[in-house]
Amino acid sequence: MTKIEELKQKETGRRHFIKSGATFLTAISAPAAVTAPLASAAPLPDSMLKSGGNADAYGSPSIYEKDVKRLVTQQNGMSTLTYTYAPLHQQKGTITPSGLHFSVHHSGLTDIDPDTHTLYIHGLTEKALKFSVSDLLRYPMVGGHKFLECSGNTWPQAVFPNAEQKTLQELYGLISGSEWYGVSLRRLLEEAGLKPGAKWVIAEGSDAGSLARSIPLERIMDDAIIALYQNGERLRPSQGYPMRLFMPGLEGNVSVKWLRRLEISDRPAYTQNENRSYADTLGDGQLQNFSLYMGVKSVITHPSSGQQLPDKGYYEISGLAWSGFGKVNAVEVSVDGGQTWQQAKLEGPVHSKSMTRFSLPWKWTGGSVELQSRAMDDFGNIQPTHKEWRKSFYQGSPKHYNAIQTWYIDQQGGVNNAF
Amino acid sequence: MTKIEELKQKETGRRHFIKSGATFLTAISAPAAVTAPLASAAPLPDSMLKSGGNADAYGSPSIYEKDVKRLVTQQNGMSTLTYTYAPLHQQKGTITPSGLHFSVHHSGLTDIDPDTHTLYIHGLTEKALKFSVSDLLRYPMVGGHKFLECSGNTWPQAVFPNAEQKTLQELYGLISGSEWYGVSLRRLLEEAGLKPGAKWVIAEGSDAGSLARSIPLERIMDDAIIALYQNGERLRPSQGYPMRLFMPGLEGNVSVKWLRRLEISDRPAYTQNENRSYADTLGDGQLQNFSLYMGVKSVITHPSSGQQLPDKGYYEISGLAWSGFGKVNAVEVSVDGGQTWQQAKLEGPVHSKSMTRFSLPWKWTGGSVELQSRAMDDFGNIQPTHKEWRKSFYQGSPKHYNAIQTWYIDQQGGVNNAF
Repeated sequence: MTKIEELKQKETGRRHFIKSGATFLTAISAPAAVTAPLASAAPLPDSMLKSGGNADAYGSPSIYEKDVKRLVTQQNGMSTLTYTYAPLHQQKGTITPSGLHFSVHHSGLTDIDPDTHTLYIHGLTEKALKFSVSDLLRYPMVGGHKFLECSGNTWPQAVFPNAEQKTLQELYGLISGSEWYGVSLRRLLEEAGLKPGAKWVIAEGSDAGSLARSIPLERIMDDAIIALYQNGERLRPSQGYPMRLFMPGLEGNVSVKWLRRLEISDRPAYTQNENRSYADTLGDGQLQNFSLYMGVKSVITHPSSGQQLPDKGYYEISGLAWSGFGKVNAVEVSVDGGQTWQQAKLEGPVHSKSMTRFSLPWKWTGGSVELQSRAMDDFGNIQPTHKEWRKSFYQGSPKHYNAIQTWYIDQQGGVNNAF
Repeated sequence: MTKIEELKQKETGRRHFIKSGATFLTAISAPAAVTAPLASAAPLPDSMLKSGGNADAYGSPSIYEKDVKRLVTQQNGMSTLTYTYAPLHQQKGTITPSGLHFSVHHSGLTDIDPDTHTLYIHGLTEKALKFSVSDLLRYPMVGGHKFLECSGNTWPQAVFPNAEQKTLQELYGLISGSEWYGVSLRRLLEEAGLKPGAKWVIAEGSDAGSLARSIPLERIMDDAIIALYQNGERLRPSQGYPMRLFMPGLEGNVSVKWLRRLEISDRPAYTQNENRSYADTLGDGQLQNFSLYMGVKSVITHPSSGQQLPDKGYYEISGLAWSGFGKVNAVEVSVDGGQTWQQAKLEGPVHSKSMTRFSLPWKWTGGSVELQSRAMDDFGNIQPTHKEWRKSFYQGSPKHYNAIQTWYIDQQGGVNNAF
């Protein structure tokens, strides 16, 4: 019995039938044997017949990879509310290249001159402080590999079940993984000095529309950073250059981009983004304004909706798992629509609040298949079924969807969204 | 006494005077207090006065970061032997963005159509095999965060001590860190079947000049991969698209780019790149052809040669450490030219054969300073002094230089290469 099943059975008393531990792995028959002597079997390719070209000061992907790009959608064809979805189906590992990192811009994309930018910390503090970018660059920096996920990621599964066939990129592309580096916000707040009664931090961006969010002070003191670097270079404009708030594990929207102001308060501000856009309607109809944590979640990226299996035989089932609470400690995969589960391999080291790559060898014998994955984190949170998830959220509530995803493989090898 | 000192004393009987454990950390006085009410202190910036622009399908850095780029040098102004040096002084964390990853091209840069590319495995195998790119993409993949370093990195310190003031980028830019992902080569060799007598693997690239290297079979069986992905996307052309050999911890040149052929043999091929370009002349004048491992090494990236401290006060000393043998387990920093050492903080999690970021808070009081760092790995290897390193290598031998680096800070705050 797997760890997740053990826990589930303890909690629910339900029984599952478990397949024996035999591996799915079978020999791969793909590569061809070379029969002629190698001199003729391996003719010199064009690339060996002339010297190559110059190197660039800032490199680019191959021209043969030009179709690897984000999907960009704009509300009403305007630059204001813009989504870019990461192409998870074309990626392996856990890092998202910064050029392909998802983004949601509420009022368009801006590129701010760092010499003109100031961060203010004020409100319930002993002193109000202002920081230039070069001030902050002198501070000690901390960081690590973390995921960032829009709370609306996978919203079509929450809102329009059965409505449309959607690809992995459309359904899951609002998550990415990066190495984020910056200044501990706890340190800056200690420098400002917190006054009694300080309980919330209101973060405001310097975009048009000044996106603002309220965050409980104890979350800030945990592990919030003022992010200045992403994947080894300064933040890209689409990630809030010259600085953003970064809140590991919380819904992406609170990691306010183009950050200009942190107001320490005894109460939240109930901004538009927490009272409307990012509030959740719960199962009982109540509004929840600060459902900040992103739950434990996983998805199979290979094979996934929109792909086509070229033929029968061996495949590596591969996917991503993450939890806003801590580390992923188990992922299981089902190839029979959730009747039986196999333990997937986690490609470590596994980091907290980070994407984890899992895999399971598998042979497709040609029949129709329902592929699923489910993850558990080290707090014992288990990814719910759609039915279990639906109990917590009102019909039509589009945020914080983390239920188990089913990909349906038809007899021709086409992979589709089953739900 | 620090770990490194303890080991050193055990080995050499030498004594070091150790500074007390008091931290260097002092208050930072950089941020200004806000005195006026915030409404006037925080006027609306331009970015808030109009909606932003459109998002791109493949994003770019800020226009204000256009000077963050690789240094490109070409031999005799031609594209053949080309070096690109990573701007380590402008990076934080441990990932190098793929566009800034160092490269050495012996015969120029080529971008190969993956549909025309074939990898052959032949020689002392039960059967010769050929793989298309799409064959390999179906295999299970493994990977992780690893460094790649040219064995000639820091060659000016080995060859021309005292000759020139060189920047960090010129001296240390031939190393980078990425998440590499690909197919285990052990698995492919097991599929081909190794014949008795198989001891070496000769890897050949499909560039003009067909760069080739011989690698002991046991190193291949350890952790070699056919790398297909780097930092979440397919390899860049400058990293050998559509595939390269990747040998964690070994000198960069053996991770053959544009890989087309692996020949299993009972002996090495003694190619030009192992008999001339990448052979080391040892202290006793003997030639060493296969000095493959990159030794334990560290360098302070902030502050570093070519930078200017703006004023007295607090700085974070920050740098990178790595070892081709395994994990870095300690880094120490000296601010007095190696007389006393302080334990630096390692920003974990620390990965094997990977770059590790270290840091130490420090206050510059205005005098001249000699900054140094030294690393130790979990095999007990300690980064040598220049004098210790020189004992092993002949004067003029430019490769595998890993001695302790000294940055000299003058009374005006200018940072220079001290050696």
